[in-house]
Amino acid sequence: MLYFEDFAVGHKFVTASRRVDAAEIVEFAKKYDPQPFHLDAEAARTSLFGGLAASGWHSAAMTMRLIVDSEFRPAGGIIGGGGELQWLKPVRPGDELHVESEIVELRGSRSRPLQGLVKVRITTLNQHGEAVQTFTPTLLVQRRG
Amino acid sequence: MLYFEDFAVGHKFVTASRRVDAAEIVEFAKKYDPQPFHLDAEAARTSLFGGLAASGWHSAAMTMRLIVDSEFRPAGGIIGGGGELQWLKPVRPGDELHVESEIVELRGSRSRPLQGLVKVRITTLNQHGEAVQTFTPTLLVQRRG
Repeated sequence: MLYFEDFAVGHKFVTASRRVDAAEIVEFAKKYDPQPFHLDAEAARTSLFGGLAASGWHSAAMTMRLIVDSEFRPAGGIIGGGGELQWLKPVRPGDELHVESEIVELRGSRSRPLQGLVKVRITTLNQHGEAVQTFTPTLLVQRRG
Repeated sequence: MLYFEDFAVGHKFVTASRRVDAAEIVEFAKKYDPQPFHLDAEAARTSLFGGLAASGWHSAAMTMRLIVDSEFRPAGGIIGGGGELQWLKPVRPGDELHVESEIVELRGSRSRPLQGLVKVRITTLNQHGEAVQTFTPTLLVQRRG
C-alpha cells in the first residue's frame, strides 16, 4: 500500500500485458458502444477505422484493469476525479496492451486534510510500443497516520 | 444522420434514461475495476464512497450507450479523439441516468478535409438533476458531399 507520502514526482509504474481479442471487443461494444466499427469486421472495413477496433471506453476499461492488477496500490484505492483522456491509435484484435504510468504532480487537498492529490500520466501502449491512449487523472490518496 | 454542416454551436441533445442496478455495477467491476467499493456493499461502506458505487469507467460506458441509442447521430459514427473527463458524484444502485449534450465549438480539420471537428460538452445527470460526470470530447464528423 502506498500512502501519499510514499509518492514522488517521476516515480514510474509498469503493468503486465493483456491480449485483446475480437470476441471481447464485440461483447463490450454490444453492451456499451454498439456502432458497426466495434461490432463487425466487415462493416468496420469501410469506416474511418478501416477494420474492427475496440471502443475507446473498452480501451479505458482494460487500462484500468491492468492498473488494478499491478503494484500501483495507493492507500484507500485508486479513486480519481477525472482528467484529460486521449485516444491516439485504434486498438485491434490481437493487440497486446500494457500500461506505463508516471507521477507528474503532488499536492495537498484543502478540503480533505487526510488525503493528498496525486496527478499521474497513464499511457497505454501496444506491442509495437505505440501509445494508444493517455489519461492524466488526479487521484485522491490517503496520508499516512 | 447529421453532417458537420448540420451542427451549430448551442445545439442541445437529450437522451432517454437508464436505471443503474447493483448487479451490473458488480459485473462491470469484476471485469474491469475490481476494487472493494465497486464489488461489495459492505466493504464499500468504510471506503471514501460510503457505499457501493459504479466504476467511473462504467459510468462512462453507460453514458456512451445512452448517446448511441439517442438521436445524436453524426455521419460516420460517434468517433472522438478524447477530451476532459470529470467524475463529479458517485453513481449508485437505483440511480436513473440520462445525458444532456451541447455543441460548444465547430472547426475544420487541416489534416482531414472531408471531416470537421465538433466539440461537445456531454453531461450525465442522475434522477436528482445532479451532474455525475462531464466529458468534453472533440468528435470527427463527415462533411456533406
